[in-house]
Amino acid sequence: MERQVDATFGYLSPDDIGLFTDRYELTMLRGYRETEHTPRGTFSLFFRSLPTNRGYVIGAGLEQAIAYLRDLTFGEDQLAHLREEGFPDSFLEYLADFEFTGDVRAVPEGTAVFPNEPLLEVTAPIDQAQLFETLLINQIGFQSLIATKAARMRDTVRRHGDEQTIVDFGSRRAHGTDAGLKAARGAYVGGVDGTSNEAAGNQFDIPVFGTMAHSWVQSFPSERAAFEAFVDVYGEESVLLVDTYDTVAGAKTAVEVARETDVDVRGVRLDSGDLAALSQDVREILPSEMDIFVSSGVDEFFLREFFADGGIADGFGPGTSLTTSKDAPTLDPVYKLVAVEEDGKMQPSMKLSEGKVTYPGGKSVRRFTADGTLQRDVIARTDEDVGGEELLVDVVQDGDLVYEFPTLDEIRERTLATLGKLPADVRAIEDPAEYSVEISDTLTATAERVQSDLRQEMDL
Amino acid sequence: MERQVDATFGYLSPDDIGLFTDRYELTMLRGYRETEHTPRGTFSLFFRSLPTNRGYVIGAGLEQAIAYLRDLTFGEDQLAHLREEGFPDSFLEYLADFEFTGDVRAVPEGTAVFPNEPLLEVTAPIDQAQLFETLLINQIGFQSLIATKAARMRDTVRRHGDEQTIVDFGSRRAHGTDAGLKAARGAYVGGVDGTSNEAAGNQFDIPVFGTMAHSWVQSFPSERAAFEAFVDVYGEESVLLVDTYDTVAGAKTAVEVARETDVDVRGVRLDSGDLAALSQDVREILPSEMDIFVSSGVDEFFLREFFADGGIADGFGPGTSLTTSKDAPTLDPVYKLVAVEEDGKMQPSMKLSEGKVTYPGGKSVRRFTADGTLQRDVIARTDEDVGGEELLVDVVQDGDLVYEFPTLDEIRERTLATLGKLPADVRAIEDPAEYSVEISDTLTATAERVQSDLRQEMDL
Repeated sequence: MERQVDATFGYLSPDDIGLFTDRYELTMLRGYRETEHTPRGTFSLFFRSLPTNRGYVIGAGLEQAIAYLRDLTFGEDQLAHLREEGFPDSFLEYLADFEFTGDVRAVPEGTAVFPNEPLLEVTAPIDQAQLFETLLINQIGFQSLIATKAARMRDTVRRHGDEQTIVDFGSRRAHGTDAGLKAARGAYVGGVDGTSNEAAGNQFDIPVFGTMAHSWVQSFPSERAAFEAFVDVYGEESVLLVDTYDTVAGAKTAVEVARETDVDVRGVRLDSGDLAALSQDVREILPSEMDIFVSSGVDEFFLREFFADGGIADGFGPGTSLTTSKDAPTLDPVYKLVAVEEDGKMQPSMKLSEGKVTYPGGKSVRRFTADGTLQRDVIARTDEDVGGEELLVDVVQDGDLVYEFPTLDEIRERTLATLGKLPADVRAIEDPAEYSVEISDTLTATAERVQSDLRQEMDL
Repeated sequence: MERQVDATFGYLSPDDIGLFTDRYELTMLRGYRETEHTPRGTFSLFFRSLPTNRGYVIGAGLEQAIAYLRDLTFGEDQLAHLREEGFPDSFLEYLADFEFTGDVRAVPEGTAVFPNEPLLEVTAPIDQAQLFETLLINQIGFQSLIATKAARMRDTVRRHGDEQTIVDFGSRRAHGTDAGLKAARGAYVGGVDGTSNEAAGNQFDIPVFGTMAHSWVQSFPSERAAFEAFVDVYGEESVLLVDTYDTVAGAKTAVEVARETDVDVRGVRLDSGDLAALSQDVREILPSEMDIFVSSGVDEFFLREFFADGGIADGFGPGTSLTTSKDAPTLDPVYKLVAVEEDGKMQPSMKLSEGKVTYPGGKSVRRFTADGTLQRDVIARTDEDVGGEELLVDVVQDGDLVYEFPTLDEIRERTLATLGKLPADVRAIEDPAEYSVEISDTLTATAERVQSDLRQEMDL
């Protein structure tokens, strides 16, 4: 009678990753194969405009995206599913042997990027490059979104001395398990100090933090008994949650328990009420060596208010706002064909869809810095040199990895350095100034030529 | 030189699922074990208020949540990680043998739920029940969010005749792979007809839909050549994307290709511009048997405008707005201890944290219906009978599954039936009316008594 529930986990093994794609990618792949139309194509992954109140985006997620691209396979179960769905055997054989043999250029993780700048470009036979649209947007879009949100919080804390620890507490509110893991990684890239998610800590080697929940306190006959039991197990590592019944009374009890047990309890956590005011009251109660951690509704706007109201804390635990990027839950990235091989040469390509125009051709993004401050970027053709620092680096060539992935700590350092170089008004968390991104004259001329040719050909 | 990239996928195998939890859950578990304090506890999963513009929430995700709860294990790699993090061997042995032996009651998927009503209650030794907080909130919270968003779109289409197909096109913008899969499932629960995500189709047996991208059109020398090649492979199944260069011209080309190839092409897709106006123009051009599918920016508000502006379509493909629930990307669900065993009896428990009060004790939710319309709910104690239909059913008892999961189609039918019973003003997509949820007199009295006892004990 008992039904097997394992099948309904909905998790993806490496064998399943090939199938994490939209049907139309497979439909097109089959079409490209059957019509023997597989010219090389260049696809560009970028976003068209910045989300609300964002002056910049921190690129993240490249390492996972490349792992998927290089190691993707279609398992037996997946091929059987596609057979049932009507895909012919010849196509399934092609998928069973699928291997990426193309090139990838990308902006290293931890770099600030702006509208229309490619985070990544894939050049490969069009069927190969097409398949990854869904997965690349999904992975790079999400981690970049979260890295950006985290950077805004880190930057707000930095403006007030940068003494506080920030820890991602948001796994429970992330959109599924992969989001919990990748938000922890993205947030670390963006400058937070750790995560509460144990699996993310394990997979990405991110420091893991945790205290106690209200349930711990409630489960004992009294708050005092709950604190004593915790200190008995965890000693100096103990951080006691003091707002279950009354924050100020709880803080006093925490201090008494520390004194009576003669343990240098690490600190307390506040999770409700007027946190700026309560933190000041609690600071008066605690000995100087005990820390205050603040959670509940933490985001960059909360932090700005908290400091403005004289709040005192040693650490913050943002949750939902961080892992869902609640005020702007998408970057809306796209992955567009910008060049197609014709007569053995890559020709710039574009669509003319209203409000969705894409600059044609593979891109070079050049960044100009003066006195340690970013001045402007120029988006150019790959075959022109407009000066400045090139943002895109070679990652995969002919299917082989040619890039040494930096460690997560190196990526995080890059983000922090980037924040230091971005003008303050571009980093503003509300109504930021617009960073200057120019289109090179040659690229502008190319776009005009391609458009005009298209309109002529299409008789528009 | 080449670094192994497999380790950086960041996917979760069943062996990893145990570790998808917050550090503090493990900290508490260890504390409960070491202090030999493992009374039975009841945890209630609910949300405190409705997201913006929501008049109801459709519960979803129960089946996956229960699969995790029953089949969760800690693998060798996970235990090794915890050992490195300082957890003692005795605790690791406990985790290695972890098994859920408690009870779960829950609201069946596809049911409308309201603030403070438990979607699920877990009663088990407190250490066991505690562990699942992160995973249960993560899974049920997200799928319910998406089912609700989808229901709002289905309901908007229903108000205009309900003739249109709605397909989830949003995998690429979902927050990671699990979100892509679970959004597809949640959206189907909420009343859409299918998904573009092939893996979701495979895992959950959801119909999969797909057409072509602009890249297909761009990759050929002309739009006409692209359409001809596609029709050559897909015949009557072909849906041609007509807005790459000019929507009206593209539609005319699609009709010509259908005529010249003598194939009953299924239809066209519009993906940019003034979609309501263009759909009318395109309808004039197409023969009646060819369908119009509309994508780009589709959500319930778009649909309302589209119909108001006289738009004509046979199907819609919502993307980002659906899979991120963009206007309200979290339900903010919580999982709170509401009862603890004391002297062999379950005693109601609550915290007093400002603005975060929880009604104590396990709950019964009773629904009253008259003339096929939902009238009101009453949240009561489990030991009282206030009449009405009980929403929570037994799902797991003593660790054994005692519930037959409905099929996904049955769940979807339940949602559609629920929508039919909800008052129209509660279903409004903007400023909905508040559905009446009462707290029973006995539960109110219990809450007052527990609060007063707590304040007295704590000397507040």
